[in-house]
Amino acid sequence: MTVTDFATRTYDHNFRLDPIVRSLLDTDFYKLLMLQMIRQLHPEVNATFSLINRTRTVRLGEIIDEGELRAQLDHARSLRFTKKELIWLAGNSFYGRARMFGPEFIAWLSAFQLPDYELRRADGQYELHFDGPWTQTMMWEIPALTIINELKSRAAMRDKGRFALDVLYARAKAHLWEKVERLRLLPDLVISDFGTRRRHSFLWQRWCVEALKEGLGDRFIGTSNVLLAMDADLEAIGTNAHELPMVAAALAEDDAALAHAPYQVLEEWRQHYNGNLLIALPDAFGTTAFLAQAPDWVADWTGFRPDSAPPIEGGEQIIRWWKEKGRDPREKLLIFSDGMDVDTIEDTYRHFHGRVRMSFGWGTNLTNDFRGCDPDGGNGLDPISLVCKVTSANGRPAVKLSDNPLKATGDPAEIARYRRVFGTDVQEARPVQV
Amino acid sequence: MTVTDFATRTYDHNFRLDPIVRSLLDTDFYKLLMLQMIRQLHPEVNATFSLINRTRTVRLGEIIDEGELRAQLDHARSLRFTKKELIWLAGNSFYGRARMFGPEFIAWLSAFQLPDYELRRADGQYELHFDGPWTQTMMWEIPALTIINELKSRAAMRDKGRFALDVLYARAKAHLWEKVERLRLLPDLVISDFGTRRRHSFLWQRWCVEALKEGLGDRFIGTSNVLLAMDADLEAIGTNAHELPMVAAALAEDDAALAHAPYQVLEEWRQHYNGNLLIALPDAFGTTAFLAQAPDWVADWTGFRPDSAPPIEGGEQIIRWWKEKGRDPREKLLIFSDGMDVDTIEDTYRHFHGRVRMSFGWGTNLTNDFRGCDPDGGNGLDPISLVCKVTSANGRPAVKLSDNPLKATGDPAEIARYRRVFGTDVQEARPVQV
Repeated sequence: MTVTDFATRTYDHNFRLDPIVRSLLDTDFYKLLMLQMIRQLHPEVNATFSLINRTRTVRLGEIIDEGELRAQLDHARSLRFTKKELIWLAGNSFYGRARMFGPEFIAWLSAFQLPDYELRRADGQYELHFDGPWTQTMMWEIPALTIINELKSRAAMRDKGRFALDVLYARAKAHLWEKVERLRLLPDLVISDFGTRRRHSFLWQRWCVEALKEGLGDRFIGTSNVLLAMDADLEAIGTNAHELPMVAAALAEDDAALAHAPYQVLEEWRQHYNGNLLIALPDAFGTTAFLAQAPDWVADWTGFRPDSAPPIEGGEQIIRWWKEKGRDPREKLLIFSDGMDVDTIEDTYRHFHGRVRMSFGWGTNLTNDFRGCDPDGGNGLDPISLVCKVTSANGRPAVKLSDNPLKATGDPAEIARYRRVFGTDVQEARPVQV
Repeated sequence: MTVTDFATRTYDHNFRLDPIVRSLLDTDFYKLLMLQMIRQLHPEVNATFSLINRTRTVRLGEIIDEGELRAQLDHARSLRFTKKELIWLAGNSFYGRARMFGPEFIAWLSAFQLPDYELRRADGQYELHFDGPWTQTMMWEIPALTIINELKSRAAMRDKGRFALDVLYARAKAHLWEKVERLRLLPDLVISDFGTRRRHSFLWQRWCVEALKEGLGDRFIGTSNVLLAMDADLEAIGTNAHELPMVAAALAEDDAALAHAPYQVLEEWRQHYNGNLLIALPDAFGTTAFLAQAPDWVADWTGFRPDSAPPIEGGEQIIRWWKEKGRDPREKLLIFSDGMDVDTIEDTYRHFHGRVRMSFGWGTNLTNDFRGCDPDGGNGLDPISLVCKVTSANGRPAVKLSDNPLKATGDPAEIARYRRVFGTDVQEARPVQV
C-alpha cells in the first residue's frame, strides 16, 4: 500500500532548484577566523579569487550546464547568516576559547552577502572570478568549489537507474567503513574532516562525518565544516590558509618586504588571536626557505600544517628544525592535510608515533572517494584537483610556490622572482591527485 | 518501484520507544524565566507538583499503559540541555533584550536533570507527583503534560487504518486552515502559540506553528515553546505563571502576609528582570480582590494576562481599574490566554479594538482541535482539562482560587481561608472546556 504526501510532493515539483549551498556556515572554519582578522587589519585590500582546475583533462565547461551553475551561484548570493547561526558563532567555544568572534564582527556578518561573480566559458573550462574587497571575495572560495564539485557529481549520475544509484552509494558506504575499521586500529589517532571543498555532495559529506562520529568515537575530533559542526555538536577545526601569506607577499613593496611577508603574517595572527591558534603553514613559498629564514619565535608556535610536502619527509624536516631550535618535538603538533588517505595516514602515524603530536585533516579521500563504486564503470565521479585561489591583491599578482611545483600558481615571471627571493630550490614534482 | 532504506528501517525496528519529549527546551518559555528567578531568590524552597485531571470522566489509568508512561517519563529524565541549546539560550535576544539568562544560570542548566517522580494508578486515574526542590520539580510541569496528552492521542489512534489516519490529519489541517483564514481578516491581530501543554503531539504542534507562520505572517509573533522558537527562528513568548503567587501564598506566615503575597511576587519579578517582562497574572486568588488591594505601582506595569475570567468581562474590569488609576488603557496590554478559539478571539478583538493593546495566547484549540475529524467518530481525541500544579511548598498546602471556582485547586479548608483573606465573592462557575 502506498500513501502519498501530496503537499510535499507537489511542493517539491515547484522547486526552482535543489540548492547545493543552503547556509553561509556551510564553509570551512578557517575562512571565518581569517575573515575576522582581515576585516580588522586589512579592510581596504581588494583581492581577486579565481577558480583553477588543475585537472585540465576534465572539461568542466562541457560537463556542467552554465544555466545551472549560475542558478546555484545566484542562490548562494541570496543567503544570509541566520539569527540562530550568528548566536551559535558568538556563543560557542572554539578550541576551548569563548568569544572567539567579537560582537562587532558578528554584527557585521549579519549583513554579509557573497559579492557578484564573473563567469564565462572558454576552451571547455569555466573561468570564474570574484573581484572586490578581500573581506567579501574570500568567502566565495568554499561555496564556489562545493557548487562546481556537486554539479559535476550530479552530471555524472544524471542518467543512472535507481538501482544503479542504490548500489553506487552502498559501495561507497562499505568502502568508507573499511577505512574506518582500519583507522580504529590506531589507538592514539586524532583525525578530523577537511573534505568540504572537494566533497561529492553536501548530503554525502554529512553522511561521512556522522559515520566517523559513530565509527571512530573520540579519535574523530571534529570537522572544518562550520554548519556540520553546529548541527552535530562537533568541534569546528581549522586556523588559517595560504591566502594570508600570498596577499601579504603580493602587497610587499620590494624584495626585502617580500622575504619578510610570511613572518609578518604570523605576527599579525598571533597578536589578533592573543596567542591562540598558533598553527603555521610553512609551504606557501617552500618549506625549506621558510624554516631557514624563520625568526626564533616561530619555534614557539604550537605546530605546523605541512600542506604540500610528502608527509614523512616534510615532518622530518620540521622536527629537525625544532631540534635545532632547542625545542622538544613531543610537545609540538604536526597537522597533515595534503591528499591524505588511509595508507598515508597509517604510514605517517606509525612513522611519527611517540616522536611528535599528530593530527590528520582528511579531505577529498574522505568525502569524495567513489573509486570502484560505479556499477556503470567510468570515471565521471573521480575527484578533480580544483582550487579557488587568490590571484591578485590590489591589482598586483599573487603567487604560490608550494613544496610541489605542480601546485604553484601565479604569473610565471612573478614565480621566477619569488623563487629568487625565497631561494627556493628546484623542487621535485609529484603528481597532484586531489 | 519501491526502494527501501534498509538501515533506517532496521534502526527504527530497534527503537526502544518513540520519545515524546526529545529536548529539555521542549517546554514553555516562562518556566525558564521563572526558574532563573526562583534559583536566585528561593533556592531552598521545596515544592510538590501534581497532576490533576479535571476531566474525571476520561479514565487515563485505563487508557494509557503504565509501562509506556514510565518509559516516556524515564526518557525525559535522561535528557540534558545540549551545547547548542545552551548557546542559543545564552546568545538569543528575548523581547529585544540580550543576555536574558545569566552565565551562571546557563552553567547550572548544563547539569540540569528532571528529578524523580512518584507514579501510581488509583480509581482509573494516575497519581503523579514530583517532590523536591522547587528549582527541579517545576520543570516537570510541561513534559509531564505533553507526555500524558500524547500517550492519550496515541492510544486513541492505535487501531485506526492508514487511510483513516490520513483523512483524520487531512481534516484537522483543513480545519486549522479555516481558522487561519478567519484570523487573517483581523488586520491588527497579535497572536502566539501557547499550545505546548495540551497538544495532540509534538509533530502536530510543529505543523500548527509552521502553518501559522506561513498563514498569518507578522500577525503571528511567536510560540511559548522554546524548542520550536529556536528551530523556526521565532520569538519565544511568555513571562510568569500562577506557581509564583501560589508558592508565596503557601509560605506566608499569617493572613496579613498571605494578603500581601501576590504583590510581593510582582515586586520580586520586577527587580529580578530590571523592569522588563512586566506582565501580571491577576487571577490566582480572584481578579476583583487583586485589583482592589493592589498598590498603585501595579498600574505602572505593561499589562495583565487574565487567565480565567471571561475575556470581555475580565478585560473591562481591568480597563476600568486602569482608568481609576489615571492610566490610559491604549498604552496598556491585555494578553488573553484562557481557552481561546477563533470565535472568542474575534469577539474579543472587535470588542476592545482601539481601546487597549491586545495579544492572544492560543493554546488547546490551536494544537489539539480534532473535533469532527475522526472518520471513526468517537471522542477519544477530544482534549481534556489536565494540569500539573504546585500542590504544596515546604510541606504547606498550595491553593489557587482563580476567577472560576471550577478551576480552584487545593485543600478545601485552605480554600475557605483564602476566600476569607482575599474577600473573594462567590464566583460564577463556568464549564471548564480545556
